[in-house]
Amino acid sequence: MQTETIKIAIVGYGNIGRYAIDAVEAAPDMECVGIVRRSFDGLQPTADGKYFLAGYPVATDIRQLGHVDVAILATPTRKVEEYARQILSYGINTVDSFDIHTQIVDLRRNLDEVAKQNGRVSIISAGWDPGSDSIVRTLMQSLAPSGISYTNFGPGRSMGHSVAVRAIEGVRDALSMTIPVGTGIHRRMVYVELEEGADFKKVEAAIKADPYFVNDETHVQQVDRVADLNDVGHGVNLVRKGVSGKTHNQMFEFNMHINNPALTSQVLVNVARASMRQQPGAYTMVELPVIDMLPGNREDIIRHLV
Amino acid sequence: MQTETIKIAIVGYGNIGRYAIDAVEAAPDMECVGIVRRSFDGLQPTADGKYFLAGYPVATDIRQLGHVDVAILATPTRKVEEYARQILSYGINTVDSFDIHTQIVDLRRNLDEVAKQNGRVSIISAGWDPGSDSIVRTLMQSLAPSGISYTNFGPGRSMGHSVAVRAIEGVRDALSMTIPVGTGIHRRMVYVELEEGADFKKVEAAIKADPYFVNDETHVQQVDRVADLNDVGHGVNLVRKGVSGKTHNQMFEFNMHINNPALTSQVLVNVARASMRQQPGAYTMVELPVIDMLPGNREDIIRHLV
Repeated sequence: MQTETIKIAIVGYGNIGRYAIDAVEAAPDMECVGIVRRSFDGLQPTADGKYFLAGYPVATDIRQLGHVDVAILATPTRKVEEYARQILSYGINTVDSFDIHTQIVDLRRNLDEVAKQNGRVSIISAGWDPGSDSIVRTLMQSLAPSGISYTNFGPGRSMGHSVAVRAIEGVRDALSMTIPVGTGIHRRMVYVELEEGADFKKVEAAIKADPYFVNDETHVQQVDRVADLNDVGHGVNLVRKGVSGKTHNQMFEFNMHINNPALTSQVLVNVARASMRQQPGAYTMVELPVIDMLPGNREDIIRHLV
Repeated sequence: MQTETIKIAIVGYGNIGRYAIDAVEAAPDMECVGIVRRSFDGLQPTADGKYFLAGYPVATDIRQLGHVDVAILATPTRKVEEYARQILSYGINTVDSFDIHTQIVDLRRNLDEVAKQNGRVSIISAGWDPGSDSIVRTLMQSLAPSGISYTNFGPGRSMGHSVAVRAIEGVRDALSMTIPVGTGIHRRMVYVELEEGADFKKVEAAIKADPYFVNDETHVQQVDRVADLNDVGHGVNLVRKGVSGKTHNQMFEFNMHINNPALTSQVLVNVARASMRQQPGAYTMVELPVIDMLPGNREDIIRHLV
């Protein structure tokens, strides 16, 4: 039972940081005590020299915000470990949506040590994939221990692929959409805005030869303004067909169509809550009881949802 | 890390008990040490006076089976508490698929006390609904804290409804199929085999007036032999549309089409494993980390599924 509100600081004020404030404000058991940024650049101080964003105090050091229970790291993924180590050492729980799948085990091991040294909790890779999808994948695996799972992403934009295209000569801006075609195979729909005098055919060939695209069906289209195509919607279709005990042909499917940063931020807020209920250490979402992500009385939740 | 196999006893040898043996045999980290039945009725003793079923020793008291880590209660749901209390008091974990939704909180409270007194773990209501569906419902609720969820069951047979029809005068055998029509509304397709001289119109009227059916669209058909309609397939469609943070229209869906007793038994085996990894007490599935239901090394699971 929650008697006091959980005090949250948001580290980083990009897309995820802004949506995280929404999710904290919508949570009945939390309050946002401030925002941490690298600098006050672009902000106007108040008469007494303080800085605010969205009505919340801004600090360049989280220790200036008073008591904080959990820091939501809404930073670039490559900055997560550095910030988490530092903030855990101040005795504050951290949650992040670190999304480099191949490095999750190492990050967990590193932060587990720091978290335990400081008697605090760090929940890593908490978004929708890795994150809530990981819970569904693990559950499906348990329900049919033999079989095949497929994760089909989209339709939605891929940041990694878009960045790769922007690095190609002659490209001013680019958007790479991930389109699911089933069984874990994806089509890439690439929209490019070219620099003056750039040759579309050359750009198209360079994209298709890029390691990010070389193995996928890729279509490149020229557009006037990539910004006009902006949409943060995304989706997933997770399927598993397999064997329960010795009984074959068991079929499972999970679908969602969502606003990507809004869902990621909601998950971060959920695991911030869950972090208050775990023993010291670092955890991925599959290591948390799902009930710990909800506010309210445990028996009431069981009564309504089990 | 599992170094020794988990020793499982199956209590009850009906449909679920048989499928549970399949799932234990398919598990890399478990062995079935025997089956518990109320009596040896219908069994032939061996030359030295022992009893076996499916190659496993049969006992009328679980203490006769030697060391048991977990008892899988494949008993009628109304017998669960009695068996669980007794077996926990012998120092053995229990798992069950108790499915009377309104009594889950009370059962958990009662068995929590007994489990803690004996330093053991009891995992209750572990099937697919309540059970794995409960995990998905709770996860969906966390992903969109405001909104509406619907659980649509079927197509598949309803034991409760079938039993209610069999109690009606003139009915020799009956099957009630649950057909999902969306938004948590279900159609009832009832197949009846009548006794000699029974009046179909009267039976049909009695079914439609029964409390089990009075609120649902119900169709009654007469068939020669209900046994010929036997199929243990079932399914679910869980949907939630709601709000993440302050962003509306987030859509989530979970579907499955499965052999019902095979899935229930697989879940029982999964939570039997998970019971070895919890602190003493009683738990529903939403209180378990999903990773605890899988065999194998924790970091390997995270590497492959997160």
